[in-house]
Amino acid sequence: MKKINTSPISGMQELLPASQAIFNNLKNTISEVYHRHGFLNIETPTIERQEILLAKAGGDTEKQIYKVVKTEEAADSADQALRFDHTVPLARYVVEHENDLAFPFKVSQIGRNFRGERAQKGRFREFYQCDADIIGRGNLPIYYDADVIETSLDAFLSFGLDTPIVARISNRKILSGLILEYGLENKSTDIYSIIDHSEKVPAEETRGAFYEIGLSDEQVALFLAFIDIHGDREYVISKLNDLGVENPTFADGMKELDTVLSILETNGYKDNVIGDMKIVRGLDYYTGTVFEYMLPEYRQIGSVGGGGRYDNLTGYFTEQVFPGVGSSIGLTRLFYVLNENKLLKSQEDRPLDVAIVPITENEIDFAFGVAAKIRTEGRSATLVLTDKKLGDKLNYAAKIAKSAIIIGEDEVKTGEFKEKELN
Amino acid sequence: MKKINTSPISGMQELLPASQAIFNNLKNTISEVYHRHGFLNIETPTIERQEILLAKAGGDTEKQIYKVVKTEEAADSADQALRFDHTVPLARYVVEHENDLAFPFKVSQIGRNFRGERAQKGRFREFYQCDADIIGRGNLPIYYDADVIETSLDAFLSFGLDTPIVARISNRKILSGLILEYGLENKSTDIYSIIDHSEKVPAEETRGAFYEIGLSDEQVALFLAFIDIHGDREYVISKLNDLGVENPTFADGMKELDTVLSILETNGYKDNVIGDMKIVRGLDYYTGTVFEYMLPEYRQIGSVGGGGRYDNLTGYFTEQVFPGVGSSIGLTRLFYVLNENKLLKSQEDRPLDVAIVPITENEIDFAFGVAAKIRTEGRSATLVLTDKKLGDKLNYAAKIAKSAIIIGEDEVKTGEFKEKELN
Repeated sequence: MKKINTSPISGMQELLPASQAIFNNLKNTISEVYHRHGFLNIETPTIERQEILLAKAGGDTEKQIYKVVKTEEAADSADQALRFDHTVPLARYVVEHENDLAFPFKVSQIGRNFRGERAQKGRFREFYQCDADIIGRGNLPIYYDADVIETSLDAFLSFGLDTPIVARISNRKILSGLILEYGLENKSTDIYSIIDHSEKVPAEETRGAFYEIGLSDEQVALFLAFIDIHGDREYVISKLNDLGVENPTFADGMKELDTVLSILETNGYKDNVIGDMKIVRGLDYYTGTVFEYMLPEYRQIGSVGGGGRYDNLTGYFTEQVFPGVGSSIGLTRLFYVLNENKLLKSQEDRPLDVAIVPITENEIDFAFGVAAKIRTEGRSATLVLTDKKLGDKLNYAAKIAKSAIIIGEDEVKTGEFKEKELN
Repeated sequence: MKKINTSPISGMQELLPASQAIFNNLKNTISEVYHRHGFLNIETPTIERQEILLAKAGGDTEKQIYKVVKTEEAADSADQALRFDHTVPLARYVVEHENDLAFPFKVSQIGRNFRGERAQKGRFREFYQCDADIIGRGNLPIYYDADVIETSLDAFLSFGLDTPIVARISNRKILSGLILEYGLENKSTDIYSIIDHSEKVPAEETRGAFYEIGLSDEQVALFLAFIDIHGDREYVISKLNDLGVENPTFADGMKELDTVLSILETNGYKDNVIGDMKIVRGLDYYTGTVFEYMLPEYRQIGSVGGGGRYDNLTGYFTEQVFPGVGSSIGLTRLFYVLNENKLLKSQEDRPLDVAIVPITENEIDFAFGVAAKIRTEGRSATLVLTDKKLGDKLNYAAKIAKSAIIIGEDEVKTGEFKEKELN
């Protein structure tokens, strides 16, 4: 009987070993792909000064942050909190270690972040994010935006899932240009927010929301048509041209999107990228390219990662300019979704290669040596050292290992032993 | 010029990419060795209810814990804190998931823990621990104590360090028996504490401390002789026998220590284990075997890991009995120590295999394809996409990659390209 509640805190993912092994495989795959694409791995601390974390955050982020207080020296730690993403700490890292890094700095970060969101199905308060970022000093050509997207897509494709993966890509300058063109700068935040929410609500609600902030019939029609634009490069660029917007920011954004889509379509990702004007991304540090990863056959579950270009993120820490672009895979959420929808190949139930089973205590010493031998072959070996009957030991062995080596008097005497498959 | 302090919080280890790569190698080695020895990996959440974390903690632990407060719903999270080790969360995990686990449950955990200790050289507030634990249901034979120690030793030895590693092993029952034999139960905590500190202070101070708690001349002499016992199995067991203690707890502990040392000495770890009566371990959940890992050539830096037997850890969560034994490598501290003492093989400075360098924008599309080709060979390739002069691009390439492929008009035309070593 349990004496106290031993469930993990609500909003935390806790896996059994078999699921954890699948999760670890995904994580290792991402790590390998990021390295193969030229990203150097770093880790920043889990705890940062709030001053750093909240430099550019706003709204929900500030509300959802976990503050950290050390019991013994409360005053010393009262201004500390858990990181909520990898991007803000990376900005700090780059400014701090600038002189020891080669720019453009291609960097990967794989670790746990924390947001005190209201717990709900598929949403986690502690979650792994797997980020690939490229930071320039002074400037960073648009081609790098294609580089990070390609990298994450390659990771998704390396999972060998039986369902497609698509990067939906836009560029914030396009929408900014549109807003400038129509003189709607003072409604900019509302427009971004309406578009960001437009996927989660019926079209009529979006229409109503546009009217509510005072757009004219013509403007509402234009924005509705705009956010409906999605497809391959050729289609999207021609539709954007059809809007007849003359604004230079708009043109700039369109050209950047054209370049990014073009590189990705030409290089084997034609089925994995679309231009999509519904993508704006909530976080307000993005300044150009923005994108989200989606499983089109599981559209209802929302994005499983995303990212974008942030030209001014270090602006709060330094007067130097470090433009960057980053892509993040939300691994905890992705795993949850893939698992719920049975999209993950189930692991071999028995994770170990060999169980070494000494019959009595007399064979234990020898059994340790046999296990060592198996391990030098690069295989995993575990020892069954309980004082149970042989049958019980073999039942246990069959749960965890693919084969068994039973060690009795004879084996010790002759030094020879046989491996037996377990069914 | 920096606008605000961008250094990491005091007590946090933050590495440059080249050091991080070495750190990751150590971590991956441990992970592989633990798996090869039959341990299944799990991860528990970073945040736990304080009720769980403090169930069996005391003293410093409670003072050093980091409390966590969610800004938005303070009341909801006021009782939460960051884990300070893997052992207590594991006890919760085992009780929670009991019916889905096969016992003995051999489990590894590799992750970050947190203690708000006073920051000092070589001490970290956030640190990786790499734990291998074995949990039995009902009982767990002593042989498993040798199993976890062997596993961690194998990890240390797999690093290929040029300095020896030794597990110093004792058994708390020996000291308990000694205390019982002399009727010193009421001074038990003091005696443990004096022995625990005896390595950090001159022998005279230890002698004084024993007198201070009221031990007789004979008792002081006995305890001083006792804590000085260290050496191989044969020597230690004979010295313990010489003490002539008749107490059954003492005898039990001695027999257990004999068994553990015997297995390890017989199986190739003769140079890596000693019995050592100075080892008691601070944490009060240990009940039998206790051990610490030490680099004898760097004795002054203290232990780089340790562990022991805890027979009652789940006692706070359930009425069932789950005895366990665990071994932990303090990776952050170990890395710091190895690094400070230049014991780590320096990595190849240039972590990537190939840098692909398009001469102008016209070759960028083609360059992406070349990079993809290199990656299918299992090598890492990065693209140099800056708008710098070729010489500058090659200088950058030489910092991060071992070779370069320059892509110009000709390469695009012929589809052929050459790889050139970078010096």
